[in-house]
Order: sequence, then C-alpha cells, then structure tokens
Amino acid sequence: MKKSLIALAVAGACSAAMAQSSVQLYGVADLWFGQITVKENGVKVYPASQTGLFDGGFSNSRFGFKGSEDLGGGLKANFQLEQGFNLDDGKQAQAGKMFSRQAWVGLSGGFGEVQLGKAYSAFDDVSGLAASVFDSDLAPINNIFASTFFSDSFNNTVKYITPAIGGFSGAVSYSFGEDKTATTKASKLWSLSGKYEEGPLAVGLGYAKNDTAGGDTTATRLAGSYDLGAVKLLASYGQLKDKAPGTTSKTNEWELGVNVPLASNLALSAGYGRTTLKEDGIKVGKANSFGAALAYSLSKRTTVYAGVNATKAEDVPVTDKVKTNIYAVGLKHTF
Amino acid sequence: MKKSLIALAVAGACSAAMAQSSVQLYGVADLWFGQITVKENGVKVYPASQTGLFDGGFSNSRFGFKGSEDLGGGLKANFQLEQGFNLDDGKQAQAGKMFSRQAWVGLSGGFGEVQLGKAYSAFDDVSGLAASVFDSDLAPINNIFASTFFSDSFNNTVKYITPAIGGFSGAVSYSFGEDKTATTKASKLWSLSGKYEEGPLAVGLGYAKNDTAGGDTTATRLAGSYDLGAVKLLASYGQLKDKAPGTTSKTNEWELGVNVPLASNLALSAGYGRTTLKEDGIKVGKANSFGAALAYSLSKRTTVYAGVNATKAEDVPVTDKVKTNIYAVGLKHTF
Amino acid sequence: MKKSLIALAVAGACSAAMAQSSVQLYGVADLWFGQITVKENGVKVYPASQTGLFDGGFSNSRFGFKGSEDLGGGLKANFQLEQGFNLDDGKQAQAGKMFSRQAWVGLSGGFGEVQLGKAYSAFDDVSGLAASVFDSDLAPINNIFASTFFSDSFNNTVKYITPAIGGFSGAVSYSFGEDKTATTKASKLWSLSGKYEEGPLAVGLGYAKNDTAGGDTTATRLAGSYDLGAVKLLASYGQLKDKAPGTTSKTNEWELGVNVPLASNLALSAGYGRTTLKEDGIKVGKANSFGAALAYSLSKRTTVYAGVNATKAEDVPVTDKVKTNIYAVGLKHTF
Repeated sequence: MKKSLIALAVAGACSAAMAQSSVQLYGVADLWFGQITVKENGVKVYPASQTGLFDGGFSNSRFGFKGSEDLGGGLKANFQLEQGFNLDDGKQAQAGKMFSRQAWVGLSGGFGEVQLGKAYSAFDDVSGLAASVFDSDLAPINNIFASTFFSDSFNNTVKYITPAIGGFSGAVSYSFGEDKTATTKASKLWSLSGKYEEGPLAVGLGYAKNDTAGGDTTATRLAGSYDLGAVKLLASYGQLKDKAPGTTSKTNEWELGVNVPLASNLALSAGYGRTTLKEDGIKVGKANSFGAALAYSLSKRTTVYAGVNATKAEDVPVTDKVKTNIYAVGLKHTF
Repeated sequence: MKKSLIALAVAGACSAAMAQSSVQLYGVADLWFGQITVKENGVKVYPASQTGLFDGGFSNSRFGFKGSEDLGGGLKANFQLEQGFNLDDGKQAQAGKMFSRQAWVGLSGGFGEVQLGKAYSAFDDVSGLAASVFDSDLAPINNIFASTFFSDSFNNTVKYITPAIGGFSGAVSYSFGEDKTATTKASKLWSLSGKYEEGPLAVGLGYAKNDTAGGDTTATRLAGSYDLGAVKLLASYGQLKDKAPGTTSKTNEWELGVNVPLASNLALSAGYGRTTLKEDGIKVGKANSFGAALAYSLSKRTTVYAGVNATKAEDVPVTDKVKTNIYAVGLKHTF
Repeated sequence: MKKSLIALAVAGACSAAMAQSSVQLYGVADLWFGQITVKENGVKVYPASQTGLFDGGFSNSRFGFKGSEDLGGGLKANFQLEQGFNLDDGKQAQAGKMFSRQAWVGLSGGFGEVQLGKAYSAFDDVSGLAASVFDSDLAPINNIFASTFFSDSFNNTVKYITPAIGGFSGAVSYSFGEDKTATTKASKLWSLSGKYEEGPLAVGLGYAKNDTAGGDTTATRLAGSYDLGAVKLLASYGQLKDKAPGTTSKTNEWELGVNVPLASNLALSAGYGRTTLKEDGIKVGKANSFGAALAYSLSKRTTVYAGVNATKAEDVPVTDKVKTNIYAVGLKHTF
C-alpha cells in the first residue's frame, strides 16, 4: 500500500463532505502503431512519411487535476488543470506549458457555469458534436476543416455555459488579447454556441470570431446527429471566413458520417468530408478526406482500435496536390 | 468513482499508519479580471498596460505534492514539490522548471526541521509576517520593497527551522552557489530569522546576505502585527544594501497596514508603503505604494476578492516617473 | 483533511474493483551534500569541481502516475508516466519533457506484458542486475561503462516482457526511429535480455543494437550475483562496439562488487570496475572506478547514505588524464 495515493478512511470520517473536497487525477494514455504516407505531387515527403509509434490516435494523451467544492445553496467552486503530452516520447504537447489544454477556476450552480482562465471555446462545444470516426485524428473534420482553429482552448478566457433546459443548452466565451498598443485595440476572440440534445436527436450551432489588428476570422458550424439504433447519422456543415486588408477568403466545409454499433463492445465509424477554398469569390483550393475506424472496448476505460484515413488537398487549378494516407492500430486507456 | 484518486479502504486497513504514508496533492487556482495601467512620465506604456485576465491576484497559482512519513521516536521524513504556473495561459511560471517554487526532502522531530533542496529562505519566514492586503500582488511590500528578492526559494538550500518554544521560533538557511572557479570562491546566499507569536502579538526579524564575486547584497527586515480585535495593525521596516566595487546603494523601506474583519466571511485590508534609494549617501530614487482589498469567503477554500493598487516610482531629482494603477476582481480557490 | 488526496470510503464501496481503477502517485526525492573534484592532468576543472547540494546520489529524483485496470480473464491494462527532475533546483531533468523517464500504455496477462511508448530497453533489465554501490551515481558501472547508453528508456518503443517461469524471464524491445528519408532507412534501436533469478543466484544476459545511417553500436552485458548471506557477490562483464565508416571501436568493461548487510538497517556496498577502449584493434583509452557506500535505513522508504567514488580515465599513451573524486552524504525518500 505504501505507494498508493492515500487509502485512508477512518470509518466515521466517510462523509459526503469529504468527497466534495477531493482532487481527481485523471487522464488518457493513447498510442498507435502505424504508417503515415505523405505524397506531394506523387513524391513521398519526409520526415512526414514514417512508420512507427505515434501519440493519440483516438485522443491526445493528457493528464489533469480537477475538483469541485460544494459551497452550499447549490453553488460550487470548480477547477481543472490539464496537460497534454506525447506518449511516444514524453514531450510536453506545447513547449513551456505546464497545462497546455485547460487551466481554469470557476463557479457553477443553478445559473449555469463560469470558467475563468485557459478554457475551451464555446465553439468547441458543438464542433465535435457530430464528428465521425470517434472525433479522432482519423476524422475528416480533424484533417481538413479550417474552422478547427476555433475548436481549442484559449488563453485569458471567460466562458459561460447555461444549464440544460428541456434539452437546450448554450455557451459563450470571450478571450482577451493582451496586445493593446497606443494605436491599436487589443485583439479579442469570442464565440457562441447552442445545442439541443433530446432522445435520438442532437443539433448544434456555433459561431466564433477572432478579431485582430491584422483582420478578422469568423467561423460558423452547424452540426447534427440522429440515432436510428442500428446506425447513427452524423452531419456537419460550416464556413470559415478570413478578412485581411484587400482580400477575403472563404472555406466551405462539410462532413457526413455514420456510427454503427456492431456488438456491445464493438463499434464502427466512418465519415467523408470536403472543403472548398475561395479567394475573393474565385475557387483556389479544395480538399477531401475519408476516415474509418473500428473500436473494440476491452472495458469502459480501455479500447483497442484500428483505422484509416485518406486525405487529398490540392490547388485549383492543380499545381500542388498533397495526398496523406494513415493506417493505424492503437490502444487507448482512460484513467 | 472510476476517476477519483483512490477511495479504497478495507475497513481493517484504516489505520493511522496508512495516513502517514500518504501523498497530498494540493494547490491554488487564482485568477483575476482587471485593468493594469502603467504610465511613464504621463504616457501609457504597452504592453504593460492591458485589460484582461491575469494569474494570481491573491496568490500565484500552483500545485504540489507533499508527504510525511513517521519514522518512529518522533522523527519524520518529509518532502514537498511545488510548481508555479499561470492560470491565464497554462505556462510554467519559470521556463524549464518542473517545480519552480519548492523541491526538497528533509527530516523533522523534536529538534526542529531540516529541508534540503530548493527551499524558501529563512528571511521569507518573516517577510510576509506583517504584509498588508493579504500579502497579495496588491500589497505595497510586493510592489516596491527591494528586499523581496530574498523572500523566495533558492536552489541548493539547507534550511533549519527551530521548534516553537514559548512563542519563539527561528530559522536559518544557506544556499550553495555552484559557480566556484580557479580564482573565485563559490557565491553563497544565507539568511537568519526569528519570530515571536503569542496571543495578539507577532514580531519577527530577518537578515539575509547574497555574497557573490561581483559584490554583496544584504537585507534586514523587522515586521510586526498586533491584533486589537476590531482591527489588526501591521508594520514592516527594512533595508537593502548593495555593495558593488566602487558604489554602495541603500534602500530604506517601510509599510503600514490594517486588517479589518467586517463580518465572519468578509475582511478588508489596506496598506501604504514607501522606499527611498540612496547611492553613496545621496538620494537618487523613491517610491510609494497604496493597496487595498476586500476578501469575501465563499468557504474556507474559496474567496472572491476585489482590490486596487496605486504605485509611483521616481528618480530624484525627477527625470523618470512611473505610475502603475491596478484594479482587480478575482477568484481564489485552494485545493 | 481538506488538502488530502481523498480519503473517502463509504464502507460498502470498499470493493476490489475500486482498487483496480486507482491511479498511484509515487516518486523519489533524493538529495546529497558533498564535494566533486575533477582534475584534468592534475589541474582542477571548473565548474565540474564544486561543493554543495546535488540531486539523486542514490536514485535520480522523480515522480510518476501509474495504474492498472483489471479487464477480466487475467488481462490488465496498464500505464506509467514518470518525470525526472532535479531536487536541488526544481528543473526538468530533460528540457521540454513532461515525462522524461517513462510514458507508456500496455497490456499484461498470462502471456507476459507489452509496453508501448517511451519505455525502458530490454537491455536495462539486466544492466542493473549486478551493479554495486546500490546502482547509484557512485557505482563504477554508472561512471565508466560505455554500454549504459542502452540502460535507458527510449522513444517509440514496443517492449515485451515474458512471464517468469521457473526463475527464467526475458524481454525484447524495439524502438522506431522516425528519421526515414528518401534515401536512407529509419534508424532502429532494439535489445534482448534474459535472466534467471532463483534463491541466492541471479544471472542475466543482455544485447542491444542501435542501427543508424551513420553506423551501428552494439552492446553485450553478462551480469550475475550470488548471495552467500554474510555477503553478496556481484559481477558484470560487457562490451560495446561502435562501427562507423572506416573505424571500429570496442570497449571492454567489467565490474566486481560486494553487498554486505551489516545490520538489519545498515548495508555496505563497494565495487571496482575497469574499461579498455580499442580503435581498430589498438588500445587508445582506459578507465577505472572505485565506489563504496553505506546505506542506513530509517524506514523502508527513507535512507541516509554516505559514499565515495574515485574514477580515472586516460588516453593510451597518456596525453590526457581525468580524475574525479566524489564524497557524498545524502537522504533518499521514496513516496
């Protein structure tokens, strides 16, 4: 017992109050073996093309500390600190970060929840709602959608999440830039999202804007899924607009997918997506991506998976064409 | 329960011995929203002047592991590992550090306590004894006192803390420099402190010296507080002396403050401080700082706070004057 | 109790299932005070020569998270994440790493164990089998053996460990290089080891190879120990071969040692080792090292130690001679 993280419990001390003041240590360890092949105009590109072990096929590896304190009257104080790292080499996911994924403190209660710090955008709440291929690195969305820029956590963020009422919930986030100067305003990144989840149906709409001195980037995403039992249908549609002085570029993006439960512990998910890039109304690029994966659950917390992704991105008219193929077999463990 | 950090306890195993071998995971998550305005000779300075979210208004955010093992006969083995990080962006407080605040192993018993590693100076034990404004970033001491250089943890430190006897306790710390060369001795930083805490009175005296090949820096601090019940009076007085070849500079510094408990869960603290810098006996600079904050406790572990600080630093005669104003509203959660 | 890492256990919830889903937080805090003297051709070298506090005399300081989940049928999912750091200054042992020592996920069962990620080589399993001086920084092996390059964890590793059958066990590890180019194959580092441990006897044989575009490095190690009760005899013999285009260098290395239990809580260990370096069959260098240490256990988890090491490395014929002397007194605490 000597190394175990406390195993103390005087019988009389086993109260609910103690549970409320606990810190949870949690995480994901996910590694896959496989092959990545990247060809630019038919020629293999290195070091992008490699065979070996890679981090996070299904979920990027991470660990975190989180906790919740009951303040009475339905009010809670919460915090979450989450670090990303690579399981293949032990590196910090982002250099110089102790908690690259999340680091926030907040309050929650009947009014909903507020998070303050490095927190996920409101946009992120819907962006993964209908992602196929288990929202993994093999999902088309995560390979070609430009708007995934906003599906992330951001520094200096205030996030508010409404309570779920009759299946409806929403969120808004605002991230302060700390780049104000004598002549330019501070940049700001904010987003809004709403979703409805009830029975077999889930629908969400998200909007995000990054407002900087150099231009604006906005994204919209509509995502939905419907569970027919034998199969769950997934669809996402979105747009990213980039306004720089003199140019406006627009990316349209969509993905369709299916989740198929093959057995109680075996599931298949596949998806296909496309994006089109226009600059000042003229089509200049396009991409498509196909992904599929099988997930075999050894337990609720441990999954063996196998999957593929084939992605193609090209200019229009074609001068540069990049094809990426991924074959992966992996193990994901949640703790 | 699956993610909780163990909650195992076979009834018969619930002994005190098990508690002694526990590792504690603890920390602080503290974030504030506010405005920092820095004006140099009347002109706003950027990026120092910003509005947004900032880490650690009341206490710098941190997490740590600590533990204590009963070795029998009153002897204990102890360790503490503590990392600072920014809750607003997840960064390590100090680049390249796994534990930027503390990292030590030691023994304690009837003789007192010894800490070996990266440990806080003995000087630090009294420097915060009478700090106003909750010893926060808004406290005058933490904005203008030069001797706060010594109120820190240092590498390669041996620290000894006496047991408290009749209200008296003391500490001494010695930090080895690893910069010995063929012609110069290794630098050394050491400090001494003693304090008396009994009933409403607390008084402490600290001394610290940083002895390097390039010169010596010494600091003295006398700090005390007296609790009248309706109000607690706080006073600190100190001096920092810098001896470089050819020049000696001296900073005199003092702070006065009050803590006022307004209700069982509401407290006000305010303070004012001044420093004067002399080079070879001639006054060349001065600074003053005012800070005040209200702390509203939602629980023992969670506090909402609001505060201000106004600090002015100038040359004598004035050629450069820097004014800093801070308005802050924050949330501090201890876990 | 508020800061303790959960101490919750409703009596009825104290099931084995809960223990299985636990995360263990563990580590080592080890610091020593002492003197390192390095002389090159009789002249003291700085900053290598210093007196002060240093990390990890007996074991490098570290902390880690590990866990095991029972998947049923004897199968388990396991993970281990381990970070090295310096207790003297709080630095990450390796810049940019969150877990510099180990980071892997895997499965174990009747078939043995598989680890995937940053894992220790199979070679490491025997390299420490017969190391004298508690396999510490004072051990000859850890000061002069060239093959300790392979006694480490490596990125992108698949490791398989057999079950122990009749005292026999073995391991194999393969580490993928991710440096394939259009003209060169990816490097690969692999190793094999087998050992027999039964009663007083332990014998192990390890082989490792690092196969890169610039040449091959291979190492062999035979290690064994025999416990006579009053004394345990330790012996290691090995060779490291470096094949670069045009040159082959070979290092022969051996160490002999004894462990002497002086009392139930006091042990002495001493060892002597030598290495000889030949380039294309011609002797060009040699080294020898002597180490000895006393370990006094305050408990199973806490040890006070004192030790010395004297190491000499020189060219043949002598143009450069480096002598290193270490005197150390330290404290090691395991949590």
